[in-house]
Amino acid sequence: MKSDIDRLMAERNLDALIVFGGEAENPHRIYLTHGHEANSTIFKKRGRPAVMLTNSMEIENARQSGLDVITYDELKIFELWAQYRDDRDMQLVKIWERYFERFGFSEGRVGVYGFGSLGASWETLKLLSQHFPKLEFVGERQQTIFDVAVATKDADEIKLLKDIGQRTNLVMQAAWDFIGGHRADGDTVVKPDGAPLTIGDVKRFVRIKLLEYELEDPEGMIFAQGRDAGFPHSHGNDAEPLRLGKAIVFDLFPRDMKTKYFHDMTRTWSIGYAAPEVQKAYDEVMTAFNAAMSAYKVGEKTSRYQEIVLDVLEECGHPTGRSHPGTTDGYTHSLGHGLGIQVHESPSFTHLRDDDVIQLGNVFTIEPGVYYPERGFGIRVEDTLYVAENGAIHSLTPMHKELVLPLKG
Amino acid sequence: MKSDIDRLMAERNLDALIVFGGEAENPHRIYLTHGHEANSTIFKKRGRPAVMLTNSMEIENARQSGLDVITYDELKIFELWAQYRDDRDMQLVKIWERYFERFGFSEGRVGVYGFGSLGASWETLKLLSQHFPKLEFVGERQQTIFDVAVATKDADEIKLLKDIGQRTNLVMQAAWDFIGGHRADGDTVVKPDGAPLTIGDVKRFVRIKLLEYELEDPEGMIFAQGRDAGFPHSHGNDAEPLRLGKAIVFDLFPRDMKTKYFHDMTRTWSIGYAAPEVQKAYDEVMTAFNAAMSAYKVGEKTSRYQEIVLDVLEECGHPTGRSHPGTTDGYTHSLGHGLGIQVHESPSFTHLRDDDVIQLGNVFTIEPGVYYPERGFGIRVEDTLYVAENGAIHSLTPMHKELVLPLKG
Repeated sequence: MKSDIDRLMAERNLDALIVFGGEAENPHRIYLTHGHEANSTIFKKRGRPAVMLTNSMEIENARQSGLDVITYDELKIFELWAQYRDDRDMQLVKIWERYFERFGFSEGRVGVYGFGSLGASWETLKLLSQHFPKLEFVGERQQTIFDVAVATKDADEIKLLKDIGQRTNLVMQAAWDFIGGHRADGDTVVKPDGAPLTIGDVKRFVRIKLLEYELEDPEGMIFAQGRDAGFPHSHGNDAEPLRLGKAIVFDLFPRDMKTKYFHDMTRTWSIGYAAPEVQKAYDEVMTAFNAAMSAYKVGEKTSRYQEIVLDVLEECGHPTGRSHPGTTDGYTHSLGHGLGIQVHESPSFTHLRDDDVIQLGNVFTIEPGVYYPERGFGIRVEDTLYVAENGAIHSLTPMHKELVLPLKG
Repeated sequence: MKSDIDRLMAERNLDALIVFGGEAENPHRIYLTHGHEANSTIFKKRGRPAVMLTNSMEIENARQSGLDVITYDELKIFELWAQYRDDRDMQLVKIWERYFERFGFSEGRVGVYGFGSLGASWETLKLLSQHFPKLEFVGERQQTIFDVAVATKDADEIKLLKDIGQRTNLVMQAAWDFIGGHRADGDTVVKPDGAPLTIGDVKRFVRIKLLEYELEDPEGMIFAQGRDAGFPHSHGNDAEPLRLGKAIVFDLFPRDMKTKYFHDMTRTWSIGYAAPEVQKAYDEVMTAFNAAMSAYKVGEKTSRYQEIVLDVLEECGHPTGRSHPGTTDGYTHSLGHGLGIQVHESPSFTHLRDDDVIQLGNVFTIEPGVYYPERGFGIRVEDTLYVAENGAIHSLTPMHKELVLPLKG
């Protein structure tokens, strides 16, 4: 949680942290500013409130963050721009000198965070390391302070994620109803005028529904049919008509427009009827899903649940990433991931690592699936779960898990 | 242009380049992959095609990029994951060793690009620098290879940007018509049922219109009225009703959903009538706009046009960032910026730097404005322009520039 950041800084012996970044979307900044990131740099001394450094043009956005705000103009950065316009390295150093002066910070270990241009920041950090020898700029590659903090959600975040989950479920139910209101012509789903209903039509419908619920789709939903559904991250072909009896993987991971938190859910549908091999594989995936669901327990390693699902699916005869490393058939991915401001956060549920443990306040997905592109199908079912204060695991994704989507038309 | 990249690598003595990055949106990767970035790392030797390294799960997306694709599984990276699971630094080094082997690359200068997690990449690059002493990892802070390449658009890009411009203009005209179809009650614009028409209502209308034209709004439009319009980057208050005679700055910078290219345009509207001080300031901004438009010439420094606009607006009595550094009243920003895959690209039109020159193939904005938050208004007018092969400067933003938006209702 956000309230853990000072403790984590102490544990890692960091005296301050900087969230660098330019205009690019910056999850660390979104987190600290409650979604009001503006175009800013954030500085925080351990035990002190975070401060946003920004342009006067961003001041109104920046103030909504609740953080202290200092503008470049207040620090008369424009003087340094003019004075060092012909030596851009020295310009940068002098600007940071002024920032560090303002923050009364001259020596210690500084954690480096933020998202942005990697080449530029590589040069910037080398330059700052060289010019400020009493500062040590420390990056983290794994389980960073932010990774650990975001992995457990506070009560306000859980409330928000519940609400976003409800809205996402309403959108997916609306898509089910929308498709179901059509009729078939042969094996093709058609509109009232007889033209095929395409994946593009469904996606357009869903995007407009998302907007009605103040949700956006920045990463692009997956609506993949037949062979495409056999590739876990294929987004589907917009031009393709919906067909009866083909498995459709519909993975929707929209973001709340205001707060920038995500929901993530997947359903597999087969319109009109299900082919026997699809129904069989679907039932096996649900068996794996339920095996993990009934086993989840606070304090256990997340890798254990991936192993449970691997056991079930291997027993059903599916190749997996454990039995056949590198396979693209069968169960090829991990069981789930945390989510919040990013669609993939800690903890992760893989058998390749075992450093994550289920904790109170975790919000994570469960999403077993099997994939057979050459046999023309793929299946995945996904809910978002949260771990309540009493340790119970609840779903944020109430929507039904029917495989066969009947046409009413 | 993309075709300049090998030449730029030679000029900068780079033997290869790497576009690093994880899941976060990565403009360098979008550029090289024609919008099909997948979650991948890109490696390119000078004079050779770029190669995408990605997960098998991303293979279908990755192939659409037109680049060569190698999966982690083909390189048996899972072996290294397993072998070095307890030493994550060595795991990373061994993985890169395998990549470099596959590319037959063992010494030289490597340009570092991409967008992603800055702390992680800082540690990664330190680690790689230490373990591969024959490789020099070079970042660029200013006018990077990508900055220079994207600044000039090829014929296909210009065609695309024209089309996106037309669609954006249709959306903004639709917003004008939508507002104009309402009536006033006192000084408030109201809906048929008498409830106020709010900024949130207008934004919802615009977002749905954008979708109809296959456009998205990833950065969030500006629709700011009255005092809010006096802050150049205030997004406006959704709850606020539209009022007669208040200046509204409407800055729309949507992105094509398929190709990820932007358009950028701003209009200032005053519903029903314009207050005399708003009309006067608007006319002065348009005088500055036209002065720059009629002066643009290929080969000239971009700073010259900022100076022209500064001259005009200072002569009208407006404070500026040149006459009053750090001012938040008057003309407080630069005249424009290139755009394409990012909403802000090279060239920039500021008086604080003079290293950019107008070139054939440039696409850039012109957006003079004046801001008076305490007097309750701001004004900005913005078109996107392009420099044709014959050196002529054309607008991609045909929409009219009427200030007063009359209500028909």
